[in-house]
Amino acid sequence: MEDFITEKKIYYHDTDCGQVVYYANYLKHLEEARTEYFAEKGIDLKKLSEESTWFVVAKVEINYKYPARYQDILNILTRIDGFKNASMDFYQKITKSDTIIVEARTVLVCVGSDFKPKPIPLDLKNALNSI
Amino acid sequence: MEDFITEKKIYYHDTDCGQVVYYANYLKHLEEARTEYFAEKGIDLKKLSEESTWFVVAKVEINYKYPARYQDILNILTRIDGFKNASMDFYQKITKSDTIIVEARTVLVCVGSDFKPKPIPLDLKNALNSI
Amino acid sequence: MEDFITEKKIYYHDTDCGQVVYYANYLKHLEEARTEYFAEKGIDLKKLSEESTWFVVAKVEINYKYPARYQDILNILTRIDGFKNASMDFYQKITKSDTIIVEARTVLVCVGSDFKPKPIPLDLKNALNSI
Amino acid sequence: MEDFITEKKIYYHDTDCGQVVYYANYLKHLEEARTEYFAEKGIDLKKLSEESTWFVVAKVEINYKYPARYQDILNILTRIDGFKNASMDFYQKITKSDTIIVEARTVLVCVGSDFKPKPIPLDLKNALNSI
Repeated sequence: MEDFITEKKIYYHDTDCGQVVYYANYLKHLEEARTEYFAEKGIDLKKLSEESTWFVVAKVEINYKYPARYQDILNILTRIDGFKNASMDFYQKITKSDTIIVEARTVLVCVGSDFKPKPIPLDLKNALNSI
Repeated sequence: MEDFITEKKIYYHDTDCGQVVYYANYLKHLEEARTEYFAEKGIDLKKLSEESTWFVVAKVEINYKYPARYQDILNILTRIDGFKNASMDFYQKITKSDTIIVEARTVLVCVGSDFKPKPIPLDLKNALNSI
Repeated sequence: MEDFITEKKIYYHDTDCGQVVYYANYLKHLEEARTEYFAEKGIDLKKLSEESTWFVVAKVEINYKYPARYQDILNILTRIDGFKNASMDFYQKITKSDTIIVEARTVLVCVGSDFKPKPIPLDLKNALNSI
Repeated sequence: MEDFITEKKIYYHDTDCGQVVYYANYLKHLEEARTEYFAEKGIDLKKLSEESTWFVVAKVEINYKYPARYQDILNILTRIDGFKNASMDFYQKITKSDTIIVEARTVLVCVGSDFKPKPIPLDLKNALNSI
């Protein structure tokens, strides 16, 4: 599947007194990028949640390669790596020019209002598989 | 009315690359202190919200006097300054030893599920007025 | 002085379980807008900080008029309301279409590495006063 | 090595409009617990950073098992799983009563001011290995 790129500028609130981006805040940036990826595929996560379909994060594996800093402009590559019946795997890479800042793999599980897994709706899967 | 004091330790995620606590994060500390103030008075904000009574912030006036830093241990004084029919005024002061870090005045409005103001329930007012 | 408008999309991390944007997070949005305002005027806050000139927030007065929600797209108007020797006043208004979400007045003070106020450099004042 | 337990109460700012704790915020709670773990062993991370020794996060693997909610009181178990020359592995588990909320493995790397790995000082290793 093709790659999808979004841009993220770093502000004070992203950083900590170690002078670099705080490690938890990259997960916010990754969420934003995945939301824009869904939107690009015509999938409105807000509308889905009103229909009691949510994608919740079940797992994150994130490697911090190089620190980003205040006012850096980062690129976030987002790609789906695979589907299971009720979940999907995302691969994301945050870079600054040619430098890899962060690499992350995230498992999203499709759940209902009871937070129990349910199959990903077929039209969603088709939309995500389209180019 | 008497004063109520809570303690807050500063961690990396509270700070920014200016080496001090990020200005928005004090509002999180102030929320925590107000929640503990309510709890001290026997008021469970979660239970209230399940009964469709919320206290939402309508206004904050906050003065930043001196910067707090990583691993500082701060004291937060919380006091109710006055009631109106559907709102109440909080005064809060964050200090580090004898140094004032932040002073804030916050107006909380009592609302229902529709976010429209409604009178503060009398038993709540009585609980908050008790010593 | 003229108005400056930026756009802000709301993601999960901006919201809380009250289903609306958490009150402290608007201060992050306001910081981002002010930073872009400075950038528009040719002022690089990062470069300034390397030259030991910082603008720190001394006061915020913020009124919460109407709640913003997940995936709302907000406009932030940023305007300088006045200068003093070592400080400047910002007026900012966050709107969703014709609805005012938040109005805020922020005082920024120019400080050196010792966090003590110092006069705003003249070239900065001129840049900010230009149209 | 023995286990170390800290407590964490959930406030509005920890949650999102999905009504549960936002996935990135657990990383803040994990940082706080690790910092307290170091403190318990007599290690002051702030003092170390002033001596140009930092522990930066190189990797996090986090499994989200069950959602935590507003006003939950969570326990965080923190344990060192092993040392390498310039890094150490943490295992952490967040629970609510008998329910596992989150399990996480974090690699911290010892770096100098240049962000390059350097051996963990021997006295630190000894302190961390003590019971």
